[in-house]
Amino acid sequence: MTQAVVTLRWMNESGKQWLEMIDQTRLPAVFEYLSYDSAQGVAEGIRTMVVRGAPAIGVAAAYGVALEALQLRNLPRAEFDQRLQQGFEVLAESRPTAVNLFWALNRMHVCWQQHGTADAVTLSDELLKEAKAIHSEDVDINLAMGAAGAALLSDGARVLTHCNAGALATAGHGTALGVIRSAVASGKRISVIADETRPFLQGARLTAWEMVQEKIPVTLITDNMAGHMMARGEVDAVIVGTDRVAANGDVANKIGTYMVAVLAHRHGIPFYVACPLSTIDMKIARGEDIPIEERSPLEVTGYRDCQWAAAGVMVRNPSFDVTPAELVTALITEKGVIHQPDMYKLRQLFS
Amino acid sequence: MTQAVVTLRWMNESGKQWLEMIDQTRLPAVFEYLSYDSAQGVAEGIRTMVVRGAPAIGVAAAYGVALEALQLRNLPRAEFDQRLQQGFEVLAESRPTAVNLFWALNRMHVCWQQHGTADAVTLSDELLKEAKAIHSEDVDINLAMGAAGAALLSDGARVLTHCNAGALATAGHGTALGVIRSAVASGKRISVIADETRPFLQGARLTAWEMVQEKIPVTLITDNMAGHMMARGEVDAVIVGTDRVAANGDVANKIGTYMVAVLAHRHGIPFYVACPLSTIDMKIARGEDIPIEERSPLEVTGYRDCQWAAAGVMVRNPSFDVTPAELVTALITEKGVIHQPDMYKLRQLFS
Repeated sequence: MTQAVVTLRWMNESGKQWLEMIDQTRLPAVFEYLSYDSAQGVAEGIRTMVVRGAPAIGVAAAYGVALEALQLRNLPRAEFDQRLQQGFEVLAESRPTAVNLFWALNRMHVCWQQHGTADAVTLSDELLKEAKAIHSEDVDINLAMGAAGAALLSDGARVLTHCNAGALATAGHGTALGVIRSAVASGKRISVIADETRPFLQGARLTAWEMVQEKIPVTLITDNMAGHMMARGEVDAVIVGTDRVAANGDVANKIGTYMVAVLAHRHGIPFYVACPLSTIDMKIARGEDIPIEERSPLEVTGYRDCQWAAAGVMVRNPSFDVTPAELVTALITEKGVIHQPDMYKLRQLFS
Repeated sequence: MTQAVVTLRWMNESGKQWLEMIDQTRLPAVFEYLSYDSAQGVAEGIRTMVVRGAPAIGVAAAYGVALEALQLRNLPRAEFDQRLQQGFEVLAESRPTAVNLFWALNRMHVCWQQHGTADAVTLSDELLKEAKAIHSEDVDINLAMGAAGAALLSDGARVLTHCNAGALATAGHGTALGVIRSAVASGKRISVIADETRPFLQGARLTAWEMVQEKIPVTLITDNMAGHMMARGEVDAVIVGTDRVAANGDVANKIGTYMVAVLAHRHGIPFYVACPLSTIDMKIARGEDIPIEERSPLEVTGYRDCQWAAAGVMVRNPSFDVTPAELVTALITEKGVIHQPDMYKLRQLFS
């Protein structure tokens, strides 16, 4: 399977090391990598959505810690520890909903603790090694999810997706789009219907771009057309990604996912969620307890420089919503497919 | 009650007569009237959505016939008839879904037939009189619907609406927004949640603009946020307009209406449709038989000059969808409120 797009890459040239990430705020008009060399910089990249998608955010945050450690490696360990802690904090505050951010930071924190007596140089090397491990594991996990999920799609299936859970949302291959890629690679003819996904337009800009690049047939619709397409019998399955799954199977994902799930339920269309284990948060009991980010009104009153809404209007901009587990046909994980997920099945998954 | 905005106006100066319509493609950035003096011109104005909204389209089409008749008034009656018929045809082909267009053209046609022996000058005067009657009746009908519907909204209600069924969609006052205006005028505190309504953004541009002008609190959301708002208990009622109601009560309206209706149903939120009798098409048995317009892909790949979608993506752009009668709590008409509309209740309405 070809690696369509390299969302994040670790650079090492002439003794200098840094992180590069595709600027996803400017795709598809501009394809450009931005460079990062600090936790603060990566946190800003996450906040402004240069990098987005729960797994990709996790990988970026891990590299953010490693970058900070590299910068601090010549300090005495006590000062190193103090300043690295600040790096962790600024990264943890970048975005609230995707749990992969906290999962990755936690892994980096465990690595830090495990080298309690090492000097800063050794520790920073270990932290970089851990970040690279998180990075490469993510691709493997996506490939495993793809293999598990591909079996759920029949030849000729017309699959609706919301937002972008593709290579751009991960270290590569993708979660929801990874399942589609794996099904296509296995010889199935799959066509994709992409919700444009207002306000940030990840569907129109990123999912459409990824699918066009790989010559997988893709049709763009506005978010409010999904119900019409289902009512006309033009959707066979829905696959989306997720930013956090609660212990009872409730799914937080990009705003509008809940709407798609309700419509799929009404029309008897399976609703699948591609979900690496790192996205399941067993510490949160129910979806309603997942923190939902609210972003800038300017995202809703227009798109970037193109502002169209009437002046003086109030705005709401929740970036995510919660789909109750009862509407989820199955979670697709790297450990296999969990049909009708619930508290008991998720507990079993981690035992 | 103040007349907030004059969508269409008949002009008569120094012996010259013409129609002016607000250019709704440029609102709210630019507020400008465009002038029309022929059926062809008005048809183009309808097609390009300078004027939109089912009742407003009906009024515009009636004036389109009158303008054509005025231009032809010095011709012999046989030639007048032949060319006027062409005017009817070009208007009938402008947009397919809103039945008010055909309803208004039919009224103009009946007027034409009723003056079978008159000379062209007399007939053109009669046609203008009929167009003006359709125009002024529309305002009266909206006020009657507003009075009937206002009783359905309780003090403090947070009312979600989709697209623009306001003064701009009618000759004045509005259908769905007319109900809200009437409720506010009766002393109720109503706040509005406006779906932005991709792709043409009637909610963000027109509904928000109308409500801001009248100081009715209005909050803009993207279409895919409606489910989240309902799940959080932030919506008390939904009111929308309609472009055509079938004889069984199925409702065709702006794309995305069906999604809102399904979500309202799930959350036990009343879903009201403001619907003048001219919008009910007793000749169409069921919603699935209503013709659904598909518009240009460029509306979906961006907004006007701002194009953001990935090149090479296919596009669907159905402008309307159908909400089955079972999801409609009530139709609000100028003859009163029809709860749980069905074939029998609609037949009774016209008997």
